Amino acid sequence: MVGNILFVSGHGRNLPDLPGVKHAGKVPADVSMEEGYATARAVALSMLASLKQELGDLDRVRRLIRLFGMVNVTPGFDRMPEIIDGASDFFFEVLGPVNGKHARTAVGMAELPHCITVEINGEFEIYA
Amino acid sequence: MVGNILFVSGHGRNLPDLPGVKHAGKVPADVSMEEGYATARAVALSMLASLKQELGDLDRVRRLIRLFGMVNVTPGFDRMPEIIDGASDFFFEVLGPVNGKHARTAVGMAELPHCITVEINGEFEIYA
Amino acid sequence: MVGNILFVSGHGRNLPDLPGVKHAGKVPADVSMEEGYATARAVALSMLASLKQELGDLDRVRRLIRLFGMVNVTPGFDRMPEIIDGASDFFFEVLGPVNGKHARTAVGMAELPHCITVEINGEFEIYA
Repeated sequence: MVGNILFVSGHGRNLPDLPGVKHAGKVPADVSMEEGYATARAVALSMLASLKQELGDLDRVRRLIRLFGMVNVTPGFDRMPEIIDGASDFFFEVLGPVNGKHARTAVGMAELPHCITVEINGEFEIYA
Repeated sequence: MVGNILFVSGHGRNLPDLPGVKHAGKVPADVSMEEGYATARAVALSMLASLKQELGDLDRVRRLIRLFGMVNVTPGFDRMPEIIDGASDFFFEVLGPVNGKHARTAVGMAELPHCITVEINGEFEIYA
Repeated sequence: MVGNILFVSGHGRNLPDLPGVKHAGKVPADVSMEEGYATARAVALSMLASLKQELGDLDRVRRLIRLFGMVNVTPGFDRMPEIIDGASDFFFEVLGPVNGKHARTAVGMAELPHCITVEINGEFEIYA
């Protein structure tokens, strides 16, 4: 954390085993759109878990500033925003329409570590 | 915005129809160097339009802090900086050599949303 | 610099000629894991050199906030974190375990400028 900004590492491993969540594979060859969305949502959940671990109390999170969403893609796939919506929608639900509003970038990567499907990093504003 | 930093989302869609600007395609297979440069310049212009919409008045922009420029490339193309110069040159012209000076990263992506040619996000310093 | 955050451009060119450091090529086709690690370490060293040039005195660096590490990969390679560890380990050694601790993202890029092997950008906290 610097000032009131908390920088969150790229998340995407060790996701909860929720329906549709994939621990590896590329979209769309190995992972469907629906599974990709569910996986991005699980990545957001794991970011929230890291925030809780770092801050002790999620009440210290004021709002989401930005997400950088990376999708592990096979050539020709260009619907990354629909996948990363899984994470954005999650934060809108948790933080509300005002504090969940964020700058976003959603792109397609050649390769992600351990062949994970989605990796997301970001910045959050923390109460002083 | 957090403190005096405004985080700007990845831009690259809905670009103005200026000469050479491409709305989709990879460099260099579909898009020439000159067209790529013109497209990056149009992306910068669209970022400025977003700043105006967000802030109401461009006089509130103090300076550009950083650009993260992503070029949609075909394998073997490694001249991304010359493409992203289109955006950097634009901000130098608009903000001047001091306030337009910025940290920059220019890389080649496997895929960008909607097969756009250039996507750029960044941070700007806003007057308090 | 904005507030006490210094944003550092993507580094990866003009690296020192240290053992194992590669100035171009993809991992693992052209560059081995060991060479990739050594190259990432050299990139971190070149970031420190830029900090010294910008700040005049490295004593002004309080701590590392974040690294975004990009590895130029051939398809199927997914061990990017082990490569970027070269940079992380360097900053732990230079700044210590507390001030060298950082948020990190390590991903595989389709192409990097001038076919460099590793590119890293980041943010550092500077003493006010």
